[in-house]
Amino acid sequence: MSIRLGILGYGNLGRGVECAIKQNPDMELAAVFTRRDPDKVSILTKTVAVCHVRDAAAWKDKIDVMILCGGSATDLPVQSPEYVKLFNIVDSFDTHAKIPSHFENVDKAAKEAGKVGIISVGWDPGMFSLNRMYTSAILPNGKDYTFWGKGVSQGHSDAIRRIEGVKNAKQYTIPVEAALEAVREGKNPELSTREKHTRECFVVLEEGADASKVEQEIKTMPNYFADYDTTVHFISEEELLRDHSGIPHGGFVLRSGKTGWEEENSHLIEYSLKLDSNPEFTSSVIIAYARAAYRFYQEGQTGCKTVFDIPPAYLSAKSGEELRAKML
Amino acid sequence: MSIRLGILGYGNLGRGVECAIKQNPDMELAAVFTRRDPDKVSILTKTVAVCHVRDAAAWKDKIDVMILCGGSATDLPVQSPEYVKLFNIVDSFDTHAKIPSHFENVDKAAKEAGKVGIISVGWDPGMFSLNRMYTSAILPNGKDYTFWGKGVSQGHSDAIRRIEGVKNAKQYTIPVEAALEAVREGKNPELSTREKHTRECFVVLEEGADASKVEQEIKTMPNYFADYDTTVHFISEEELLRDHSGIPHGGFVLRSGKTGWEEENSHLIEYSLKLDSNPEFTSSVIIAYARAAYRFYQEGQTGCKTVFDIPPAYLSAKSGEELRAKML
Repeated sequence: MSIRLGILGYGNLGRGVECAIKQNPDMELAAVFTRRDPDKVSILTKTVAVCHVRDAAAWKDKIDVMILCGGSATDLPVQSPEYVKLFNIVDSFDTHAKIPSHFENVDKAAKEAGKVGIISVGWDPGMFSLNRMYTSAILPNGKDYTFWGKGVSQGHSDAIRRIEGVKNAKQYTIPVEAALEAVREGKNPELSTREKHTRECFVVLEEGADASKVEQEIKTMPNYFADYDTTVHFISEEELLRDHSGIPHGGFVLRSGKTGWEEENSHLIEYSLKLDSNPEFTSSVIIAYARAAYRFYQEGQTGCKTVFDIPPAYLSAKSGEELRAKML
Repeated sequence: MSIRLGILGYGNLGRGVECAIKQNPDMELAAVFTRRDPDKVSILTKTVAVCHVRDAAAWKDKIDVMILCGGSATDLPVQSPEYVKLFNIVDSFDTHAKIPSHFENVDKAAKEAGKVGIISVGWDPGMFSLNRMYTSAILPNGKDYTFWGKGVSQGHSDAIRRIEGVKNAKQYTIPVEAALEAVREGKNPELSTREKHTRECFVVLEEGADASKVEQEIKTMPNYFADYDTTVHFISEEELLRDHSGIPHGGFVLRSGKTGWEEENSHLIEYSLKLDSNPEFTSSVIIAYARAAYRFYQEGQTGCKTVFDIPPAYLSAKSGEELRAKML
């Protein structure tokens, strides 16, 4: 019997989950839940029902794992503890500073309900976290570095779009090659925010807007741009849609460390991602962890888990025998 | 109380384990066991006993995890099932084709004795296996590639040394840059053995040996060299000791995969290692898994495990709270 998944929230991430399910023969999509009018939401899997979120409880016994595809700012802090009372869940909560409290909330609700909730799944948090953790356990005498990009930052693009006179915008986060090289050479550099990443913005102005004023406002925006070297390009909406409609992303996790009686030997571990579609890759990670949530639940485990708690084999559709014979 | 480790077999790997223990404050070295005359084995940790392997059983209650540092050809197939009757063990068994039977043997003995045995720990098998597994679970519609090097292959160096007229030799395995690039570009190439790696040999001849005969013999050696483009350099013993006494290694695991409703998006995951000392890095991985073996045993788990079965957090000295707050 296949693992029955629900999708709650049908944006880029929800659609990514839908696509990922298609690639995993041991899974099936049971239903999609939306806060919009279900009649107006058209999904890719034509045979599957679109329901209003208020009807989710009725699917309690028809869904093995509910994938929560809402945002981290306001949706998931409420939804994850709420829906884990009804379903095993996986979310991609990515507000790093608030993970401990989110964990506590989901853990409490999940344990009371006898369900499993896996939080903060994706690539950062997610695969990048795993690499930071594995490498620091292996090379305790070392230093790790995370670089993001080249890729589109949704948050930074949104911040530009809120500026008066801006019609549309896309922002790319770009790692500084020289900083990456210094890390690769084992120099263990201390890197400031400005030394690690640059920001490149493609901006479409409203008719009659003042370009230099907009550029100034972007470059001096606190938190988002003021601490970075930022380049602003003004382009037509046509160019933006033609050349910048994708959602690529990626990045690097590196750890350099020393071993030996006198710490005489250096080692470098590097993990990198180059992603055409940030939400589709995130969804693919989520789906693998949905398999783990299902298995944990089958075993009678309950509570909140993160990528740190899941034995790798639980992500794979292959058996232990197969994994040992073919992948070890 | 710290985790008390034993080292069985004091070669490059055993010495690496000894160095790695020094970097992990929650661990201590209890004793080193050797098949040689213990009086003639000098270890780095002057306060610790060197014992004969025949006395290992007496340490049953004084060692939490025994690290087996023997070779995969003849030592570990016997030692791992034997010593897991007395101790929790970690080994670095690396004969990929024989892992399933080794697993069965260790699993049976470990379960009977109520102990934990973690096998095939290191970087390949080990960290490379983990990356092959994680990435293939995440991107099921994809292809993975493993490249080794640049690094010293002990087996190939030994094979050259067995040739008549050869006094000493070091062999480097080198990944072919063009093949790596083709994979990085998402071309999913089918690569022959020759297209993936080249072999470079540094050979010291015996007085009066026939260089061209030795070179011919190396290049045509079945399994080891015949399927590769091999370069042979003849150098003096002085040069060999000066320039080629290290044991560096490393390599790459890549997976390229497609996502999207029509598989329209490509992704690349790349993991790489650059290691000054192959045995010291392997030892560092082993030590982290010794922590996991200890914890599994504390929980009452028994039997044989591999890197696929171990929740990542079990490798870290940090608590779950700490990991979630700082590394997720």
